[in-house]
Amino acid sequence: MKVIVIGATGTIGSAVVKAIGNRYEVIPVSFSKSLIKVDIADSTSITKMFKTTGRIDAVISVAGLAKFGPMTSLTDADFALGLDNKLMGQVNLVRSGTEHINDNGSITLTSGILSRKPMKGSTAISLVNSALEGFVRAAALEMPRGIRINIVSPNWVIDTLKAFNMDPTIGTPVEVVARAYVQALEGAMNGAVIEAIE
Amino acid sequence: MKVIVIGATGTIGSAVVKAIGNRYEVIPVSFSKSLIKVDIADSTSITKMFKTTGRIDAVISVAGLAKFGPMTSLTDADFALGLDNKLMGQVNLVRSGTEHINDNGSITLTSGILSRKPMKGSTAISLVNSALEGFVRAAALEMPRGIRINIVSPNWVIDTLKAFNMDPTIGTPVEVVARAYVQALEGAMNGAVIEAIE
Repeated sequence: MKVIVIGATGTIGSAVVKAIGNRYEVIPVSFSKSLIKVDIADSTSITKMFKTTGRIDAVISVAGLAKFGPMTSLTDADFALGLDNKLMGQVNLVRSGTEHINDNGSITLTSGILSRKPMKGSTAISLVNSALEGFVRAAALEMPRGIRINIVSPNWVIDTLKAFNMDPTIGTPVEVVARAYVQALEGAMNGAVIEAIE
Repeated sequence: MKVIVIGATGTIGSAVVKAIGNRYEVIPVSFSKSLIKVDIADSTSITKMFKTTGRIDAVISVAGLAKFGPMTSLTDADFALGLDNKLMGQVNLVRSGTEHINDNGSITLTSGILSRKPMKGSTAISLVNSALEGFVRAAALEMPRGIRINIVSPNWVIDTLKAFNMDPTIGTPVEVVARAYVQALEGAMNGAVIEAIE
């Protein structure tokens, strides 16, 4: 299989690349640090990326920005960031990408635990993560040629919690989160929200 | 209580107004058919509406547009309609409205069954409905002065199914759906997704 990993240089993305190992051909893509670059907030950039990669068997997206902060301090632009980037960026990967994916291939997107377990400051992120899960449940009913679509909803990663000076004991090792993407890639599920929590 | 009902002339909205009856003071608002009008996709229009109504105890929103159709035929503008209107329109009712709501008041928004039970053609609507549910779960943690926020996720209304030539036996009477809004108004729940299914 030829697998694009978007966000390949991030905390989770690099763990996904490592978990896939050399069993499949991985094409790493990122906003700035990979040979092939993409700005998922720009649909022209997405189209260009798929032209560069050619036909593939799977797309894994571990990419997307959304803003954390108290609701009263979030601006229109803060909400728009999440809608344009993490939400519609990933939706547009599906809308543009499906035609480039071989029969029986797969797409795996990323939401996050704040969709189901919000915290103070997560309104814009919870909105985006939940939106992605609803989109994937619906899109699974319409995917052509046996192509599957799923979404991983990762728990907080231990390393991320440490970086934010939060309690790391509530987190999940990044290797466990990465395994969920491999399961979505190799499994038979379609329309699933895979909660990557140990 | 002084209660704004936005979308007061729609199928569900008019049933909500009827269910509240004369127990509270209802201020009906709609896009074009009420004395007080609002375009929820326009935040200036929302601000103006709250200036007109003055302080209130509750906001019930049964308003919002989103586009139904096969994912491959939905345009960028079709997705944007749902994001700007049903999604951010209702989010902005919360962002602008909270300061006009008295202590211990409430806000009740509307999502819909397609968030959890999608069908072919519902990608844009399932996205928006799920986004609203995620937003409400998170916003509930940040509401000031005892103000509660909840969301009703109505099943298909029997009359709507009949109008679309769909099987009405899977539907819920509009009076049952309306009751869910009254429960959100009078109850103690906060951050709840109330599934209005008989």
